Amino acid sequence: MDYQKILSKITPTRQEKEAIKRFTNKLIKTINQIAEKKNIKAKATLVGSVAKGTWLKGEADIDIFIKFPLETSEEKLKKDGLQLGYECIKAMNGKAEERYAAHPYVTGHIKGYEVDLVPCYDIKDASQLKSAVDRTILHTRYIKKNLKKEQIKEVLLLKRFMKALGAYGSEFKVGGFAGYLCELLIIVYRNFERVLEAAALKWRKGQIIDIEDHGTGKYFNDPLIVIDPIDKNRNVAAALTQQKLSEFIIVARNFLENPKEDYFQEVEYSHDKEKIQTKFKERKSKCIILEFNPPNVPADTLYPQLKKTMDTLVSHLSMEGFKVNRSSYWTDEEKNSLIIFEFETWKLPAYRRHMGPRIWSRKHTKRFHKKYGNRIWVEGDRLFVERKRKTTKPETCLKSLLRGVEYLGVGKHVKEELKKGYRILDINEYLKGEPSQEVLRFLDAFLDPGKHLWRS
Amino acid sequence: MDYQKILSKITPTRQEKEAIKRFTNKLIKTINQIAEKKNIKAKATLVGSVAKGTWLKGEADIDIFIKFPLETSEEKLKKDGLQLGYECIKAMNGKAEERYAAHPYVTGHIKGYEVDLVPCYDIKDASQLKSAVDRTILHTRYIKKNLKKEQIKEVLLLKRFMKALGAYGSEFKVGGFAGYLCELLIIVYRNFERVLEAAALKWRKGQIIDIEDHGTGKYFNDPLIVIDPIDKNRNVAAALTQQKLSEFIIVARNFLENPKEDYFQEVEYSHDKEKIQTKFKERKSKCIILEFNPPNVPADTLYPQLKKTMDTLVSHLSMEGFKVNRSSYWTDEEKNSLIIFEFETWKLPAYRRHMGPRIWSRKHTKRFHKKYGNRIWVEGDRLFVERKRKTTKPETCLKSLLRGVEYLGVGKHVKEELKKGYRILDINEYLKGEPSQEVLRFLDAFLDPGKHLWRS
Repeated sequence: MDYQKILSKITPTRQEKEAIKRFTNKLIKTINQIAEKKNIKAKATLVGSVAKGTWLKGEADIDIFIKFPLETSEEKLKKDGLQLGYECIKAMNGKAEERYAAHPYVTGHIKGYEVDLVPCYDIKDASQLKSAVDRTILHTRYIKKNLKKEQIKEVLLLKRFMKALGAYGSEFKVGGFAGYLCELLIIVYRNFERVLEAAALKWRKGQIIDIEDHGTGKYFNDPLIVIDPIDKNRNVAAALTQQKLSEFIIVARNFLENPKEDYFQEVEYSHDKEKIQTKFKERKSKCIILEFNPPNVPADTLYPQLKKTMDTLVSHLSMEGFKVNRSSYWTDEEKNSLIIFEFETWKLPAYRRHMGPRIWSRKHTKRFHKKYGNRIWVEGDRLFVERKRKTTKPETCLKSLLRGVEYLGVGKHVKEELKKGYRILDINEYLKGEPSQEVLRFLDAFLDPGKHLWRS
Repeated sequence: MDYQKILSKITPTRQEKEAIKRFTNKLIKTINQIAEKKNIKAKATLVGSVAKGTWLKGEADIDIFIKFPLETSEEKLKKDGLQLGYECIKAMNGKAEERYAAHPYVTGHIKGYEVDLVPCYDIKDASQLKSAVDRTILHTRYIKKNLKKEQIKEVLLLKRFMKALGAYGSEFKVGGFAGYLCELLIIVYRNFERVLEAAALKWRKGQIIDIEDHGTGKYFNDPLIVIDPIDKNRNVAAALTQQKLSEFIIVARNFLENPKEDYFQEVEYSHDKEKIQTKFKERKSKCIILEFNPPNVPADTLYPQLKKTMDTLVSHLSMEGFKVNRSSYWTDEEKNSLIIFEFETWKLPAYRRHMGPRIWSRKHTKRFHKKYGNRIWVEGDRLFVERKRKTTKPETCLKSLLRGVEYLGVGKHVKEELKKGYRILDINEYLKGEPSQEVLRFLDAFLDPGKHLWRS
C-alpha cells in the first residue's frame, strides 16, 4: 500500500502551514495586546490539532485558548474571556458568533478560517481542572511531548481513514473517534497499520487502553475505554458508540485484507430519484416518512433528541404490532428533519389478542372478567381476550402516538416542534415531491446500510 | 340450585338399571360357561361405571373383564381371552370388533350395547400388576368400597358437568377428567358442590390430592396430581391437560357465582354458513385451512399427531415471519381432518433481516462475509444481512414446509397422509364449498374459544 500518494493529498502544504502559523501568531499577539491594554491578566495560547500539527490539509480548525490565572472568578473569566474574543475578532475584521460548550465562547470567521476563542484556566495538571475545556491545554501539551514528529503522518492517515468511514469526531451526530483519541492510538500502537491491526485482531468487548497505567479502566463501562493520560477519571472514548467502534473494526479488517486507496475516500451515495424509487419498490415493504421542523438548538442537543424520538416511536409502533424492520433519521439542522420507518408488519387484523392473568388468582381473574365480560378464553393456565384495535395501519398508529406526544419519551425540544406540526407520508408519496439531493443520499444510504464498510 | 331436576335427567331409570343388570349377568354367565366347556381357567367380572353404578342415563359402556390366574402365560391369556370374547359375542348374536389397549381385546355390539371384553390377570393388589388394564379391577373394588350410595348422584352431577364443558374423559381427544377421577374427587370432597368449591378456591398449580397418604405426590410434575389410592406410583390425573384443568376451574367459579341448569348442558355452536362467513370477514384477518385425510389409526394415536403437526407448522410459520394468532384442528377420525391457522401477519416484505455473528469473532465474521458478500451491515456489535424471502405469502410458505414434511416434527402416520396429498384454502374459499355441519360448528367454536366457559 503506497501511503505516500494518500499523504500527498492530506498533508498540509508548506504554504498552508506557514500561512496558518502567521495567522495564529497574529491572533495570539492581538489578544495578548488587547488584554494588556485592558489590564486583563490573560494569555492566549494555541491548542488543538493546529498546535499539534495534526490537522488534515485544508481543514484547519483554529483553537485559541485564553488562559486566566487560577484565582480568577468564574464570572470574571466568562466576561473578560468573551470580551477579549469579540475584540480580537473585531480587530482582525472577522465575524463573531457566540457558542456554548462547558461555558460560552466566541467563534470568529476571519479571513476564511474558523477560529474558536475559548476562555479557560491556566492549569498545570488535572488536579486543577475547573471545567471540561481546561483539559484541552493538557491534551495539547501531552501530544506535543509524546507524539514523535514522524508519527504525525500516521495520525493524518488514521484521521482520514476514520473520516472516510464516517467515524471521525466525538460530536453526537457522529459518535466516533475524536482527534485526540486518534493521536493517542498512534502513540500506543506506533503507526496507522498497527492501530488497524490491533482493532482488527486484538480488541475485545470493553477493551481497555491505559497508556499511563492509571489502573482505572475497570471503573468504566463503555465499548472502548482509553484512559486519558492526563486525567485518570476520564475515558477519552466515552462518546464513541458501539456502532462506530464495530464499523471501525470491520473496516480495519476489510482494509488489511485488501488494502485500497479508496478506503481513504468516503463512499458516494446516489441522488438519482428514479433509482431510489425503484429500490424502495423492489423491497415490497412499507416505508413511511415523518417530517418536521428541527428545533433551534445546538447539534449536540438536536441529534440525541432525534435518536430518542425515533427509538421511542419504533418501540411504541412495535408494541401496537407494527414491527419495524429498520429506521433512521436525518436533519439539515436548520429547516428539515425526518425519520424513516420501514415496516416488517404493516397490515393487522381488526382484533388483537390481549393477555390476561393466570387462572390461579381468583381476584385477578374476577377483575379481568368484570372488565371484558364473556369474551374471555383460556390458553394453558392463562386468560386471554380479544380487543378491537384502534388502528390497523401504521400511519394512523403514528398519528395517534403523536397526538399523545406529551406522554412519549421524546426529547423536549423536538416534542415542541412535533406539537406545532408534522407530515406523515408513504415513501412513494414522499418521493413524488422534490426531496433535496442530501435527503436522496440519506435515503440511498438507508437502502444500503453497509455500503461504507467496503471498497472494491 | 335444584339438582333434583338435573338428576332426573341423568340418573338411569329403574328399568334401565334392571335391563343392564340382566344383560350383564347373561354376559358373565355365557363367558364362564364357554370357559368351563373349553377348560379355560378364567372368570368374567363386571367392572367400570356399570359395576360401580355411576353411569349416566343412556350412556352405559359395559366393561367385562375376563380374569386369568396369575400364573397364566401372557401368550395364553391373550389367545384364550380373545377367543372367549369372540365366542361370547357370537353366542349372543353380536358383532365383534378387535381393539387394542395394553393388549388386544374384543368389543361386541350386542343388542344395542357396546361391550368391552378384556382379558386381565386376577390380581389382589397393585404389587401384582402385570399390565395397565389389570388396575381397573382394583379401581372398581376401591370405588365400590369407598363411595357411599348417596354419593352416586354427586358423581353423576360431576360427570355431567364435566361433559357439558367438554372436559369429561381421559382420552387424548379430550385430555379431561376420567370417570374414576370424578369418583375419587367426590370421595375426597364429599359432594359435587364441594368439588367445585375446592377447584374454584383452593386448587393451586400442581395441586396434590393423596387420599391414602402415599406421600408420592412430589414425584409427579403434572397440572393436577391425584395419587391413585390403589397404586402410589400413578397419577390418576396424568392425562388431564392444563387447558382442561384451567377451564374446569374457571367454569366452577362461574357456576358457583351464578348457578344455572345450563351448566349441565353443552353449549350449542352455529352451523349457519353465512353467519360464520360474516364473522370471519369482520375479523379482517387471514385464515387458511389445511385439509387432508386422517390416517387409519386409533383416536388416541391420531389426535396427538394432529396436535403435534399443528404445533410444528405454527412454529415454522412464525419463524418465517407469518405470526399465527390462533390455530386449531379437527377430524371426523375417518375421512377428513383439518387444521385452521389465523394469522396476525400474512404480508411480508421481499427481504428479511438475518442476524449474523457479533463482530468480535474474526473467524465468524469472515465466514459470514464470505457467505453473504458486501451486503452485510453492522448494528451495535452485530452483523446483519438481508436475504430475499422464499415466500411472502403464508399459503406458499405452508406449501414449501409441507414439501419438506419428511424433516418436520410431524407424527408418523399424519406425515404419510400429508405426503399423499392435501389442500390449502383461504377460509373464504373454503366456505364457498360445502363444509359439513360438524366442520361449521368447529369453525364457530374457533371464532368464540371461550363460549363453553359461561352460561347466561
